Amino acid sequence: MKSSARNQLNGKVLQIKQGAVNDTIEIELAGGDRLVAVITSESTQSLGLAAGREVIALIKAPWVMVATQAGNMKMSARNQLAGVVDHVTAGAVNTEVGIRLKGGTLVTAIITNDSVQGLGLAKGQEATAIIKASHVILAVPA
Amino acid sequence: MKSSARNQLNGKVLQIKQGAVNDTIEIELAGGDRLVAVITSESTQSLGLAAGREVIALIKAPWVMVATQAGNMKMSARNQLAGVVDHVTAGAVNTEVGIRLKGGTLVTAIITNDSVQGLGLAKGQEATAIIKASHVILAVPA
Amino acid sequence: MKSSARNQLNGKVLQIKQGAVNDTIEIELAGGDRLVAVITSESTQSLGLAAGREVIALIKAPWVMVATQAGNMKMSARNQLAGVVDHVTAGAVNTEVGIRLKGGTLVTAIITNDSVQGLGLAKGQEATAIIKASHVILAVPA
Repeated sequence: MKSSARNQLNGKVLQIKQGAVNDTIEIELAGGDRLVAVITSESTQSLGLAAGREVIALIKAPWVMVATQAGNMKMSARNQLAGVVDHVTAGAVNTEVGIRLKGGTLVTAIITNDSVQGLGLAKGQEATAIIKASHVILAVPA
Repeated sequence: MKSSARNQLNGKVLQIKQGAVNDTIEIELAGGDRLVAVITSESTQSLGLAAGREVIALIKAPWVMVATQAGNMKMSARNQLAGVVDHVTAGAVNTEVGIRLKGGTLVTAIITNDSVQGLGLAKGQEATAIIKASHVILAVPA
Repeated sequence: MKSSARNQLNGKVLQIKQGAVNDTIEIELAGGDRLVAVITSESTQSLGLAAGREVIALIKAPWVMVATQAGNMKMSARNQLAGVVDHVTAGAVNTEVGIRLKGGTLVTAIITNDSVQGLGLAKGQEATAIIKASHVILAVPA
């Protein structure tokens, strides 16, 4: 499979917390960064997920929010991935921002040019990628 | 009502699976394609949903992911709608991709130009529209 | 914290409805408009949410749908915020639409230029911002 998701992050299932309808899947990305996904229990079963299983986390770039100075706020989003701005590629209205996490994973966000200016984003600056767990799609080889 | 959602898909409720908080609504689109939506049980009641009820599924184009060669992967997203690329309309940064499902429903995605190139998308090619069930909004006449 | 979310809405928690996994947080925005967020119960606790607590609701502009003539349809999305178009700023493919709610809160949506034409959106016109409760991220000072 090839997918349009800008973020296709390789990782390994660390732990599964089962709910009545949805399960929480904790993933260790290559390099050690952590990611949490919420998927239906039905999907956990159909994908055959279990601790140690290799998975790919698919996240479209417009679903990723970017924050700076994240330390002075607490947020409800489960994934708050700290890193450093790797690149800022501006378009007419939107800008692509790449954030390199500590473990080396690159997360790509698409945000408006206005937001880039408001945050003063530039290569080398610290930034946090914010991703709701329910926005992560998991994939495994069939 | 008129809405900005690029995807406004007409269908009929096939089945409702009730949960404690959320319900899973299975929909047959005009032409026979299937779509699954997850909405709150409260919404199921306030919309008066029941098997046979006509509904409109609203999905914004940036919420749709596109995959090719989907057969060799399994994914947690409930909606994996196979079809053929109907049109590819490029903008400066983003491209609109229309996928015609087997039953005739047209699903529109907005993905980056880079992804279009990475997937080699072109009119007539097989492609799959990936939509999380929790990203589908349902509407009925008031 | 500064974030890329175009919508950073100040409000106060009115009520919390607890579920097994997710909680529903009802918020009164400055000016009296209402917003509902669904977040995990874990987040409710880690943020220390309770009635009366000040919060910031973060919503990326592409997650906001715009509807007109909303009265003749019922929708599953929990947030259907009526207001008046404040501004329409067109880009090459996408347009930013600002909707001023009755209480004064400005909600910003990004929709395609085609949708703007289809809806005939213009400054001063009545319009409704549609936001799924699960697409709202809440933040509080740390």
